[in-house]
Amino acid sequence: MQQNIYDDVKFFDEYKKVRFSKNSFNELLEQPAINSLLPDLNGKTVSDLGCGFGFNCKEFAKAGAKSVVGIDLSEKMIAQANENNKLENITYINMSMTDIDQITEQFDLIYSSLAFHYIEDFENLIAKIYNKLNTNGVLLFSQEHPIVTAVKNNGDNYVKKLNGSIKGYLLNNYADMGIRKEKWFVDGVEKYHRTISYIFNTLIKCGFIIETVEEPLPSEEALKKREGLSKEFIKPTFLIIKARKV
Amino acid sequence: MQQNIYDDVKFFDEYKKVRFSKNSFNELLEQPAINSLLPDLNGKTVSDLGCGFGFNCKEFAKAGAKSVVGIDLSEKMIAQANENNKLENITYINMSMTDIDQITEQFDLIYSSLAFHYIEDFENLIAKIYNKLNTNGVLLFSQEHPIVTAVKNNGDNYVKKLNGSIKGYLLNNYADMGIRKEKWFVDGVEKYHRTISYIFNTLIKCGFIIETVEEPLPSEEALKKREGLSKEFIKPTFLIIKARKV
Repeated sequence: MQQNIYDDVKFFDEYKKVRFSKNSFNELLEQPAINSLLPDLNGKTVSDLGCGFGFNCKEFAKAGAKSVVGIDLSEKMIAQANENNKLENITYINMSMTDIDQITEQFDLIYSSLAFHYIEDFENLIAKIYNKLNTNGVLLFSQEHPIVTAVKNNGDNYVKKLNGSIKGYLLNNYADMGIRKEKWFVDGVEKYHRTISYIFNTLIKCGFIIETVEEPLPSEEALKKREGLSKEFIKPTFLIIKARKV
Repeated sequence: MQQNIYDDVKFFDEYKKVRFSKNSFNELLEQPAINSLLPDLNGKTVSDLGCGFGFNCKEFAKAGAKSVVGIDLSEKMIAQANENNKLENITYINMSMTDIDQITEQFDLIYSSLAFHYIEDFENLIAKIYNKLNTNGVLLFSQEHPIVTAVKNNGDNYVKKLNGSIKGYLLNNYADMGIRKEKWFVDGVEKYHRTISYIFNTLIKCGFIIETVEEPLPSEEALKKREGLSKEFIKPTFLIIKARKV
């Protein structure tokens, strides 16, 4: 059974605050970068894996998608999506994205924002996604960057000098793929570290052609909102990949 | 003019010692990993960019290559290659790999081991390589991993605890693409940092299909030869990419 941290009451409330904040790195960095890579959605069938509150599903429908299927493991998320971001051609389903093979529809775009690092069996998921895509269909996803998922020392991984100024980001455990437990609002949030090469090779092995890779880095504006972090110390926080089934 | 550090007498002598050592990470890690990705060379035309002493050119010829062109900026390297690793169907040329467009021959494989990080204009090089490849031709190259090329604090980038044990690898300046000067036997060796996404996107933009990505990590044997470095602190040292012109 996949961990469903998002239905933990404390987690859900705290997470909601962050996601509705306009100053989160999600809003400032990840969302603009991934959404700039969206293909033309006019008349297309789309699925959003880990759709959360359904913000993006609604945008996809507004951009002309013929149908949108939002999938999320969290019952609370799906309830809010149905309440606030429902349109006629959007369906929200409360299930694990790893069960996507149980859906009968085929898609032109499968989209997923910051959810794949929660999935234990990456190859199994990617193989199922490949099967669910139409020919020429696109997989567009973001995840925490492997430089971020690698570390086991939970929390702030910046090394500081004696005077408190930052020296750099402390990278360790990169080679050790597998589960990571961290405190993120609550204890024991589980995610999975995979190396960059493993991620690419799995996509390629499943049949995908890699089209674009992005590691969005904070703008000056975003940096200002993160005090003490000068450009020198920016590490990639997200990895975004656009891949095509040909 | 491209920097030609390899013809510096002091550098050349020190470098030669390292390259002829069987305990270098080149020999233990990079060479087995990149060479395991070689396509069938029987009857093929091959070029080795930054061929150095010509070890690999000789292996390619022995593996059945029809012709091999070894290119190196260093006159000393080419002289030694001609002296020690010359076969009838191998030609060694003393020139910059960025002039590869001046060669009339087309290739089935363009190979390059740990040299691309010395090249300032990556896109220009990759575009020229693409033009020099036959259809279905392969580019197989390795370079220092972006996690390594990023840092500006020259030398040992491992952070240590007060007791001298290692805490992790200190990553900084990842976002800042461009020149890095370091001391490697001599002062002022110049190389270029590029992000992972920039490297991938440039290959794709030039027309390549990415086939395999490797970040070889040290075996237990290799680790034993690097005292004090336990598995926890291994970072990727090399990035190896196999790409195809289709």
